[in-house]
Amino acid sequence: MQKLSRRTRVLTIAATAAVLGAGTFGAVSATAGTPDAATKAAVTKAAVTADAGNKNLTQSTHLTVAAATKAAQATLDAAKKENQRVSVAVVDRNGNTIVELRGDGAGPQSPESAVKKAYTAVSWNAPTSELTKRLEQAPTLKDIPGTLFLAGGAPVTAKGAPVAGIGVAGAPSGDLDEKFAKAGVAALNR
Amino acid sequence: MQKLSRRTRVLTIAATAAVLGAGTFGAVSATAGTPDAATKAAVTKAAVTADAGNKNLTQSTHLTVAAATKAAQATLDAAKKENQRVSVAVVDRNGNTIVELRGDGAGPQSPESAVKKAYTAVSWNAPTSELTKRLEQAPTLKDIPGTLFLAGGAPVTAKGAPVAGIGVAGAPSGDLDEKFAKAGVAALNR
Amino acid sequence: MQKLSRRTRVLTIAATAAVLGAGTFGAVSATAGTPDAATKAAVTKAAVTADAGNKNLTQSTHLTVAAATKAAQATLDAAKKENQRVSVAVVDRNGNTIVELRGDGAGPQSPESAVKKAYTAVSWNAPTSELTKRLEQAPTLKDIPGTLFLAGGAPVTAKGAPVAGIGVAGAPSGDLDEKFAKAGVAALNR
Amino acid sequence: MQKLSRRTRVLTIAATAAVLGAGTFGAVSATAGTPDAATKAAVTKAAVTADAGNKNLTQSTHLTVAAATKAAQATLDAAKKENQRVSVAVVDRNGNTIVELRGDGAGPQSPESAVKKAYTAVSWNAPTSELTKRLEQAPTLKDIPGTLFLAGGAPVTAKGAPVAGIGVAGAPSGDLDEKFAKAGVAALNR
Amino acid sequence: MQKLSRRTRVLTIAATAAVLGAGTFGAVSATAGTPDAATKAAVTKAAVTADAGNKNLTQSTHLTVAAATKAAQATLDAAKKENQRVSVAVVDRNGNTIVELRGDGAGPQSPESAVKKAYTAVSWNAPTSELTKRLEQAPTLKDIPGTLFLAGGAPVTAKGAPVAGIGVAGAPSGDLDEKFAKAGVAALNR
Amino acid sequence: MQKLSRRTRVLTIAATAAVLGAGTFGAVSATAGTPDAATKAAVTKAAVTADAGNKNLTQSTHLTVAAATKAAQATLDAAKKENQRVSVAVVDRNGNTIVELRGDGAGPQSPESAVKKAYTAVSWNAPTSELTKRLEQAPTLKDIPGTLFLAGGAPVTAKGAPVAGIGVAGAPSGDLDEKFAKAGVAALNR
Amino acid sequence: MQKLSRRTRVLTIAATAAVLGAGTFGAVSATAGTPDAATKAAVTKAAVTADAGNKNLTQSTHLTVAAATKAAQATLDAAKKENQRVSVAVVDRNGNTIVELRGDGAGPQSPESAVKKAYTAVSWNAPTSELTKRLEQAPTLKDIPGTLFLAGGAPVTAKGAPVAGIGVAGAPSGDLDEKFAKAGVAALNR
Amino acid sequence: MQKLSRRTRVLTIAATAAVLGAGTFGAVSATAGTPDAATKAAVTKAAVTADAGNKNLTQSTHLTVAAATKAAQATLDAAKKENQRVSVAVVDRNGNTIVELRGDGAGPQSPESAVKKAYTAVSWNAPTSELTKRLEQAPTLKDIPGTLFLAGGAPVTAKGAPVAGIGVAGAPSGDLDEKFAKAGVAALNR
Repeated sequence: MQKLSRRTRVLTIAATAAVLGAGTFGAVSATAGTPDAATKAAVTKAAVTADAGNKNLTQSTHLTVAAATKAAQATLDAAKKENQRVSVAVVDRNGNTIVELRGDGAGPQSPESAVKKAYTAVSWNAPTSELTKRLEQAPTLKDIPGTLFLAGGAPVTAKGAPVAGIGVAGAPSGDLDEKFAKAGVAALNR
Repeated sequence: MQKLSRRTRVLTIAATAAVLGAGTFGAVSATAGTPDAATKAAVTKAAVTADAGNKNLTQSTHLTVAAATKAAQATLDAAKKENQRVSVAVVDRNGNTIVELRGDGAGPQSPESAVKKAYTAVSWNAPTSELTKRLEQAPTLKDIPGTLFLAGGAPVTAKGAPVAGIGVAGAPSGDLDEKFAKAGVAALNR
Repeated sequence: MQKLSRRTRVLTIAATAAVLGAGTFGAVSATAGTPDAATKAAVTKAAVTADAGNKNLTQSTHLTVAAATKAAQATLDAAKKENQRVSVAVVDRNGNTIVELRGDGAGPQSPESAVKKAYTAVSWNAPTSELTKRLEQAPTLKDIPGTLFLAGGAPVTAKGAPVAGIGVAGAPSGDLDEKFAKAGVAALNR
Repeated sequence: MQKLSRRTRVLTIAATAAVLGAGTFGAVSATAGTPDAATKAAVTKAAVTADAGNKNLTQSTHLTVAAATKAAQATLDAAKKENQRVSVAVVDRNGNTIVELRGDGAGPQSPESAVKKAYTAVSWNAPTSELTKRLEQAPTLKDIPGTLFLAGGAPVTAKGAPVAGIGVAGAPSGDLDEKFAKAGVAALNR
Repeated sequence: MQKLSRRTRVLTIAATAAVLGAGTFGAVSATAGTPDAATKAAVTKAAVTADAGNKNLTQSTHLTVAAATKAAQATLDAAKKENQRVSVAVVDRNGNTIVELRGDGAGPQSPESAVKKAYTAVSWNAPTSELTKRLEQAPTLKDIPGTLFLAGGAPVTAKGAPVAGIGVAGAPSGDLDEKFAKAGVAALNR
Repeated sequence: MQKLSRRTRVLTIAATAAVLGAGTFGAVSATAGTPDAATKAAVTKAAVTADAGNKNLTQSTHLTVAAATKAAQATLDAAKKENQRVSVAVVDRNGNTIVELRGDGAGPQSPESAVKKAYTAVSWNAPTSELTKRLEQAPTLKDIPGTLFLAGGAPVTAKGAPVAGIGVAGAPSGDLDEKFAKAGVAALNR
Repeated sequence: MQKLSRRTRVLTIAATAAVLGAGTFGAVSATAGTPDAATKAAVTKAAVTADAGNKNLTQSTHLTVAAATKAAQATLDAAKKENQRVSVAVVDRNGNTIVELRGDGAGPQSPESAVKKAYTAVSWNAPTSELTKRLEQAPTLKDIPGTLFLAGGAPVTAKGAPVAGIGVAGAPSGDLDEKFAKAGVAALNR
Repeated sequence: MQKLSRRTRVLTIAATAAVLGAGTFGAVSATAGTPDAATKAAVTKAAVTADAGNKNLTQSTHLTVAAATKAAQATLDAAKKENQRVSVAVVDRNGNTIVELRGDGAGPQSPESAVKKAYTAVSWNAPTSELTKRLEQAPTLKDIPGTLFLAGGAPVTAKGAPVAGIGVAGAPSGDLDEKFAKAGVAALNR
């Protein structure tokens, strides 16, 4: 048990530095001082804590399907306001798709792209627009199965650790896709 | 064009016999006199009509993503009332998944099962509990890719023709799953 | 070369017994005296002959894409006459799909089913309605990848050997599907 | 209902600007003043309109299988005139393959390449030769599943919105492939 | 929040009836009075509880990788004592594989079989030997993707709810495989 | 190390009872007194022995590619003598395909069937005709990925333990396929 | 029929220019004056000729399995002479694998790489070392499914048209792999 | 037999030059004089030796599952010391996964990435950080199925030949991943 408690302590300390506020959801800010370092550090945390009652158990944190659906619908609403046709997906930290909505008239490539962007954002706890920049240093990152390094994905965090990713595809640019994804994240705080 | 108009005429006549009411959604009734014959007949219709303006075009009818999401959420609500943990999917007549929701705590097998039940229901325009009975006559029907012949799927029709399927999985029995799926269909009429 | 010539001779003799007429296409007759034995024998032949000019080469016979498209369209026409919505596929003796047509309003399961029925028919050189009966003796035949043991597939032969399969799916019964597939085969003789 | 009508109105206005003529099919012109902007704008439209009769329904526009086959055959004819051996595919706006023809003697890679080019053209409503240029800005676009960013695909539009893509593969260059694909599009206006 | 608390309360009550003892791991007993009903009831519970701090979050319970590895090694040890060569897998409630060990000299089919048995056991919270009996009532259960209805899988529960499955394959009989799987479960209580 | 040596000793004793002769290859005899028990026992052995020099290592035994090719060619020769067109595969104990030959004019389903029969034979160290009988007791055995429970596969053993499987497909009956597979096994003793 | 004969005539003329000699097998020479143009031209030919007897039929030319095996074994022998451990595959013009040999001790990635190199060589009728150069002009060629643009594949031609590809993988460089592949091609002329 | 003995002799000589010491495990040193040449040479060796007793047999060397698990656990321990959450896999020289451990809280992309890195390291007998450099010369190496050219994989050798690969993924950089992988290799010498 000692090892586990030590890890838990370290996690708490790290969280104090990076956390966005208790109970706050948000995409990792793209305006932070040293975003790359910050998101990298954040990756080392994860929403898993040791179960006090049983040394064999650990807990992972997920969005409820109700919350994930609310976020996905807010994403579609944001796109509709700009007359864009997109699909949206919410993927949890284990890589499982929680919600997938194929938008009316969205391109056929959009649902799977949305899933992969969400998967990528939650895997590295950063917006996919940020992650795409990392390909300059490590171009083969994009060969990792399940990923898509294209703007349009945003992480959802709880106490600074990633609990889900929201991915959007179908708008004319990835930046627009990502704007809608972040609108979905923001809806979780309402 | 003559051939197409003839087909349209035949369709209209058939629709008169089987239609559930203009603008009405519903699972194909399981209490009809000769349900098997009825559902088989219904399969020969489909929500495709010739485009008056251009002989090369045809239209297909879909649920909007908003309607499909409303139905899926009603499905989850119905399950929650009975303390069941399920996943739900809505698949259109082209076989594409419009909505997929992985319910909180639902078994890992449930999302893909839900998709396949929805796919099966919309393919044959009948509840999967009915379709499973057809395996007595044609046991290899279940080998058709993408299908799952297990209770829990219900078709959504427009003017008697299938436009979507709702599939549910995760409850202790397929009959329960299908009850929730039909609650989703019913929500479309509210 | 001696071995090859011997095989060629045997083939010619077998062909004399089973051939349906030079240049004639047709589904293997379901009314022949001992159809099962006949179709089994036919399987041992195949449209491959040694290239006279080079001992390393062999030839295989295929429908032209023009012929295969003609057959597929005749299939759809036959279905349309009976107000059925189906998909159709033509698969060659090597297992490659030559033509695939997704019929207007046909169920989403129909294109892949059609391919698999065509594949099955050309693999065993018999209508899939016949092949399905063999499952009584060997039920695991249906576990062979790529196959679907469901009525709706018909072989196309040249000099008694299989050169293609036509598969149809989407009608309310496999017998109807197969009727349309045979209409496609028949069109090759026009 | 209000939201939907508003969207419909916007669509109509946009269509007025970009439409190629009522009932006209065509590849998006590569000679237009600012093609890239134009095709991007076109993507925001899609052949989906709200069903007047039922607020839960929407319609999507497809080529009939007869029209798609006619286009595919015209494609093969154009290739044959130049002694090229190609395969051709027609994919609808939902991403489903409507027609696939494997040309006589075409390379084994050609059928699947044709499907992917068609899929890519209809997804972004632009010829794949144009789309390939976008990789300079967003190189990971090509990692989207189902796509192939290689010349040879052309979109089919109805009232400016994409309803299908025609993809061709097998000629010595992608430009030749695309020339044949456009011949297929052109055949729809005859 | 009210709905969620109600669900939590129901869960607690059900847990009181079925729980095997706080902090106790175990395969669902095959000797219980009415095992089938019991395991079915257990399925309606799951190791997910609402996060007190944030209404959008829920927690899921997992074995630590250390615990899962300990169980898997105990499984292999049990097999080795009986001179059996097997593979073992531990799958969590979300369907993700936590541990997979390919035993020395185990058959090539054993690793994937082990994963599927573990997946099946955790999906329905019952040993796969029990689940196989359900095929008499619902033979198409076995067509659900990811499952294998063959003895050799055992669930791991926490407070009566499934948190993992252990699957074993490679011994001459499924009963032997399952004996080793249960030895793995038992090791979690040491 | 003690545990490993004990296992090795047990293996040697078991081998004394079942071995077909040092350096002898053969399909497990179908005429042995209690073949089912015998083959089941054989499964518990495997061609893996501890490396004397290093406790972390173990060895596995394989056919050389030269030997496997010789066996496969003997298989095709045996089929040709009876005017049968088949494909053949040799799979090693790890499940990897060593040799795959697609026979001239063999049906398109034959190569993959041959691989799966070979895989099945080496997994359980018995001819697939024997294994198919086990489905009466355990019908879901056939759902194990990679397998095909259809006559036509024969194991290759070294000192009684399975080192490879030879699978054949394409003849009118599985018994014929298996006859040719055994001719391939026999060629290894020449 | 006229169109077909015209095509045949054109083919014959083209063949006169490029053919390597009647009945001669060979990799397309890498030392020819303008190899790129030559290989591109060669692609427009293919080993398909109209069947004189029936307008619906066409023939394709294949290596016999005996010839393909001979070539593959010669490939392995050439590698063994240089102490290299490789795998080899022979793929026909339809894309089907005829022979696959996994060399003793060859890397696990080698069998599938060999198949893909063979597939690539026969698809474009050129050595893969040449084809890799084309990526400078069209980098997305390598995204075509089934291909691998890496040295090690060589085409087999009959009368200048591609009938098969031989692919090799596992040596320290692609050039070595391709040297062995060409040794396999050369063995066909012995 | 003569050929085989010659090959064995050559191997022995080569081993004398490159071997790291009998019974020693280790990642190929990155500090050796000419590492690239050295690792390339090492690839030509492999842990396969002719079976003295039977000319048809060859042996391959594997880590026992106990050793592989020990290495994997040491890997996770090394990561935990640095508060990193990773997954780890051990793949044998045949490409089969022996051990896969999904670390607590590791990203969802990590298990499959770990498998692919391990696969890549054992295929070319070099750390993946070294192999990634080879992409400068041969960028399409990374298109070989099953591979991932990203730092984090390390080979395990026996007498200089590769017997396994250890792959790690999930840390913020590939260099960290590879450091942990090498800690796993080092544990095999304890």
